[in-house]
Amino acid sequence: MATFPTNIPEKTVERLSEYRRTLLAYRRQGVTHVFSHVLAGTHGITAVQVRRDLMLIGFSSDTKKGYDVEVLIDFIDKILYSEDKMNVAVIGMGHLGQAITKYFNGKQLKIRITAAFDIDPEKAGHTIEDIPCYDMSEFEEVVTSKGISIVIVSSSSKTATSLVVPIINAGIKGVLNFTSAPLNFPQGIVVENYDITTILEKVAYFVKAAEENNNN
Amino acid sequence: MATFPTNIPEKTVERLSEYRRTLLAYRRQGVTHVFSHVLAGTHGITAVQVRRDLMLIGFSSDTKKGYDVEVLIDFIDKILYSEDKMNVAVIGMGHLGQAITKYFNGKQLKIRITAAFDIDPEKAGHTIEDIPCYDMSEFEEVVTSKGISIVIVSSSSKTATSLVVPIINAGIKGVLNFTSAPLNFPQGIVVENYDITTILEKVAYFVKAAEENNNN
Repeated sequence: MATFPTNIPEKTVERLSEYRRTLLAYRRQGVTHVFSHVLAGTHGITAVQVRRDLMLIGFSSDTKKGYDVEVLIDFIDKILYSEDKMNVAVIGMGHLGQAITKYFNGKQLKIRITAAFDIDPEKAGHTIEDIPCYDMSEFEEVVTSKGISIVIVSSSSKTATSLVVPIINAGIKGVLNFTSAPLNFPQGIVVENYDITTILEKVAYFVKAAEENNNN
Repeated sequence: MATFPTNIPEKTVERLSEYRRTLLAYRRQGVTHVFSHVLAGTHGITAVQVRRDLMLIGFSSDTKKGYDVEVLIDFIDKILYSEDKMNVAVIGMGHLGQAITKYFNGKQLKIRITAAFDIDPEKAGHTIEDIPCYDMSEFEEVVTSKGISIVIVSSSSKTATSLVVPIINAGIKGVLNFTSAPLNFPQGIVVENYDITTILEKVAYFVKAAEENNNN
């Protein structure tokens, strides 16, 4: 295999993840080949965009029948996933944390949620959604013993900022933050602030803007 | 008030929503003024970016003490929110739908989730998270009577594609899709496909890319 490409743009990585799930659905339906314009249509983008994304990862085996679904899935897998499985922990096992855990682990991903943390004594020490839940005091120890590299923060926004130091100290490499408190980490830790309120407000704004444009 | 600006870039809209929540937190702490570089620091961006965003919405009342927190909140409110409240419905009241409802309605937003839909007879006809839950057969009727303009799709991915036609027919203007099935709508309906799996895979990719770069 060629060198692992480390400089793929964010949007392309997102789309590769989306293509992969569409390709898995095709495979389940027995589809063996797909044209770039069909893949593009499903995602509401242009065929040029699809071909550009696949060129960026060095995939070029387009045939007269289109892309080989099986081969393309394997190729994207090599980009998106480590050879080693990636272990993820969830901090905050309220409604959102439990929903996320159930949601991720119900899918066939190579990234797995393998530990949860909560300050609630009714949760810590128990198994929730098939995952052991620990007290935050055990964070560093569990992260090390389980080889966890990514955390999902689904605690309250108030708690979230107090998690920054423990996360740094435990050597976590990636953070997916679902709270509305923006979290800042030193360089070397990948952070995705993913506040769902922001997205709802964005949709609301564009709905309003479209109405205004219609009225004028 | 000046004409409502309908051409603000997506990223600016997202940041305005984020600034607003930070400003609300400042206000709760009794802070009356804030400098652009302080606001910028909280969000891990530059002061130039903050000033550019606020210029785009026509806010320019910077003083020697910084921005007036109260005035800026009001100003952003006028951009992000309709005079009328925006009513939102959730389709699919499983774990994720319930978590989202609790999450949104627990915050002081002017956008409210006011109805839920599910095909499960144990849910339809009941109140869940303080919201009435209806059967999907009542969708168009409830959307009209409650003046719902936005839907959040948190059903299974398999169900999601079957929702496109009912959503169009009911005259919905904005869709926030949390499933991994990409949904396409005709022009005039704002869609945000917001698959959390994609974001986790993105974080995982950049963690892996950083490791590769360190090894080389």
